[in-house]
Amino acid sequence: MLDKVDLKAKLSKADFKKTVDDLDMRIPALQRDARAAGVPVIVVFEGWHAAGVGTVISRLLTMLDPRGYKLHNFEEPDEEALLRPPLWRFWVSLPARGAIAVYDGSWYGDVLTTHPRDHDEVFQRLRVFERQLRDDGAVVVKFWLQISKQEQARRFAKMQKKLALAWRVRKGDWRENQRYDEYAGMVDRMLEATSTDYAPWTVVPSHDERYATARVLETLAGAIETALTDKRPAKKPKLKPMPRRPGPLDTADLSLTIHRADYRRELSRLQKRLLRLERLMYLPRIPVVITYEGWDAGGKGGNIKRLIGGLDHRGIEVIPVAAPEGDEKTHHYLWRFWKHLPKAGHITVFDRTWYGRVLVERLEGFASPAEWKRAYQEINEFEEELTSYGTVLVKFWIHISKEEQLRRFKLREETPYKKWKITDEDWRNRERWDDYYKAVSEMIYRTSTPSAPWTVIEGEQKLYARIKALRTVVAAIESALHAARHGDKRYWR
Amino acid sequence: MLDKVDLKAKLSKADFKKTVDDLDMRIPALQRDARAAGVPVIVVFEGWHAAGVGTVISRLLTMLDPRGYKLHNFEEPDEEALLRPPLWRFWVSLPARGAIAVYDGSWYGDVLTTHPRDHDEVFQRLRVFERQLRDDGAVVVKFWLQISKQEQARRFAKMQKKLALAWRVRKGDWRENQRYDEYAGMVDRMLEATSTDYAPWTVVPSHDERYATARVLETLAGAIETALTDKRPAKKPKLKPMPRRPGPLDTADLSLTIHRADYRRELSRLQKRLLRLERLMYLPRIPVVITYEGWDAGGKGGNIKRLIGGLDHRGIEVIPVAAPEGDEKTHHYLWRFWKHLPKAGHITVFDRTWYGRVLVERLEGFASPAEWKRAYQEINEFEEELTSYGTVLVKFWIHISKEEQLRRFKLREETPYKKWKITDEDWRNRERWDDYYKAVSEMIYRTSTPSAPWTVIEGEQKLYARIKALRTVVAAIESALHAARHGDKRYWR
Repeated sequence: MLDKVDLKAKLSKADFKKTVDDLDMRIPALQRDARAAGVPVIVVFEGWHAAGVGTVISRLLTMLDPRGYKLHNFEEPDEEALLRPPLWRFWVSLPARGAIAVYDGSWYGDVLTTHPRDHDEVFQRLRVFERQLRDDGAVVVKFWLQISKQEQARRFAKMQKKLALAWRVRKGDWRENQRYDEYAGMVDRMLEATSTDYAPWTVVPSHDERYATARVLETLAGAIETALTDKRPAKKPKLKPMPRRPGPLDTADLSLTIHRADYRRELSRLQKRLLRLERLMYLPRIPVVITYEGWDAGGKGGNIKRLIGGLDHRGIEVIPVAAPEGDEKTHHYLWRFWKHLPKAGHITVFDRTWYGRVLVERLEGFASPAEWKRAYQEINEFEEELTSYGTVLVKFWIHISKEEQLRRFKLREETPYKKWKITDEDWRNRERWDDYYKAVSEMIYRTSTPSAPWTVIEGEQKLYARIKALRTVVAAIESALHAARHGDKRYWR
Repeated sequence: MLDKVDLKAKLSKADFKKTVDDLDMRIPALQRDARAAGVPVIVVFEGWHAAGVGTVISRLLTMLDPRGYKLHNFEEPDEEALLRPPLWRFWVSLPARGAIAVYDGSWYGDVLTTHPRDHDEVFQRLRVFERQLRDDGAVVVKFWLQISKQEQARRFAKMQKKLALAWRVRKGDWRENQRYDEYAGMVDRMLEATSTDYAPWTVVPSHDERYATARVLETLAGAIETALTDKRPAKKPKLKPMPRRPGPLDTADLSLTIHRADYRRELSRLQKRLLRLERLMYLPRIPVVITYEGWDAGGKGGNIKRLIGGLDHRGIEVIPVAAPEGDEKTHHYLWRFWKHLPKAGHITVFDRTWYGRVLVERLEGFASPAEWKRAYQEINEFEEELTSYGTVLVKFWIHISKEEQLRRFKLREETPYKKWKITDEDWRNRERWDDYYKAVSEMIYRTSTPSAPWTVIEGEQKLYARIKALRTVVAAIESALHAARHGDKRYWR
């Protein structure tokens, strides 16, 4: 893509003024329209050092209402970022619906500077990332500011002559210039591989500052306009039909129990073992995510309490998930889960999860059919980001019978200090038991993957359920520790 | 305080069980009560290494509903924290009303590990910090877990014998043990200096794990109970009367103007100078905070646009401040401003500010008289935290006449692309011009301090106002750069 660019492109002062005067009215109006329509706008800037990205962005920002945009300046990942999957810092930075995020440096910087083992795999992940954003309604516009090797060298030399600018030319910049041709090949492959119809690159000839500025602003305005007018409803994905054979819910053996004395002994033994694992996994920095879903009154709370009861709290966090609130409501539904991912070496337990999308949101109509049907793939992709980074992911569905739920509901109503735990909503959900049963079965079918399988826990007896959860987590971490001794699984860094 | 402690204190297994069984019911109930009452609970744990803080906290957490607490584990500040005033990372971590924050490591760790120049000054700042929390309704409970030098050495040796624990005993820990007596003196002074009636320390003898756990849990339960029952209304602070002489609003010369040609020249010159300063101040890492307050239609937006128009956007952020939303509403009113403080070396412009507390919140009754009267001191203390860290703080009030405001309101109504900028609220505020005039005058009188003076900008002519703002900022940064060459002003690190 780089060689098709006419680097001699120029704009006269008069033409520039005319173009930009017009955009000075159009862009603020588009910002207001995008806000009204709830469309998030994502503008990515990449380019050679000294290509003038800063100047172009500064001009763009003077047109925007500061209440509606945020500028991100992504460079090398810091420690917080290095301890999470590579896309983490970008996900948590995403704009709310109706807001604009300008990226001066983006997820593409990591590709260019951190030398991943397998470029094609990374490109694929970035396409998935941007597709997910687009499917959520975002406009994604990407600019590569292009200058020649000679022009770059000229600009570096000029900057070095000025006191206030000299510190900005670093050794690495000159190295980049020397190896320009090599980098150019890499950039070219990156632009080719990640220019999609839902998130295209625009390569901007940037020898002339006026031309580059006008070209960027016009392209951006055009892209927002198109997105605002062309609001075709998202396609419903076609899902292959569910097989007719019995699923894991149907075959769960709810008669499984454990004797109280055995329970006490096993609980103590497993808690100690897990504490030891928690400490051992800290050094190879293995991140662990444990997710709990299950029927109301299935015993999630008590189960989690025993799971973490023996652990060092410094390494663990429990994230209770309720209906989205505030910022959570105005972002992609996966955004709030990305925010809570554990640091590598830590454990995060989600008490309810992203699977709400295909359970309560599906059944209560908070997600449209297109949205929840799409979610299976999105969730698989999300979990793949976690596991390929080396995360141990354990997913529990705590299963009880409809009769047992009734018994527990009644017990809660009769016990004064448990009464606050039972609400009208619980009774309403119970009426839809069969619908939930179907949705849960479909969820388990569509999101059980080799690296992120579901574990159905037979929860009719709480003691048995707690021991099974502990055993499953212990086994998963032990196997990851074993794997860690045989080489690092993380794909990116 | 340390020598008054009986380190032999013990609890039998039976007594422990009795005590803790009771607390297992009481503490969850208190958590629910605190949530219902909207009281934030702040629990600080400090103590010698290996004193058993972890064990005690783990036991406490098993009693808490995870939806209502957050555990913080503060150790050495990371880069993000080092680039802000020392209290920044603690402020942004504070719990919402009704939530519990447990600090395993806190603001006291900085005192013990970073060797500030002047301990007494730091203690004073921490007292102020905790008083502000308490005045906002928080319960602050602090525990120091005490063990002897011999006991600590014994525990380290025991840990080193176990594979999963050995890595947790670091060299620094043994150094701490060798210098135990010296540290003990420092700790003692710290506890004495920061044990206040609104945030007392409890020194907990911790040779016996059961005793320590029970003592902490009981003390905490007692403190929350007391806070929930004893809800005396906060005292209204007594403010000294305003002097009768004319204030800076009365004496502002609104006839000041500048010719358009001079304006263009000065604007271009000052923008270039400011850009140069922005780059120069990056190396000594000077943080800059510029705040804008002013009459509706006073020209804040356009003024800010010109102030930042020539700058490198990488070093600047504009924070538009509207009525608090979401999390902002459930925290201390200063919390959201702490969140947005610039990194050292960067500039943050606040478009409206914390002064809303003594302007709109005062006049609309969103803050009680006790609250807004207290706010003058709180704001002075807040700004002192910024300036003593080395922050350049420039505060603008953009002043126009009542007649000029009317002219601008009408113009906005008549101009199609400006119409969205004028709302009913603007007209309502205008009716209260005299009340605002009084409140603004009082604000400027009570919060003009030597290190954070107000600048009243004569805004009748927008061009003049823009140049004056730019000049003021340029002068302030130049003077800070000059000072930076003569030694670092930061008080803590």
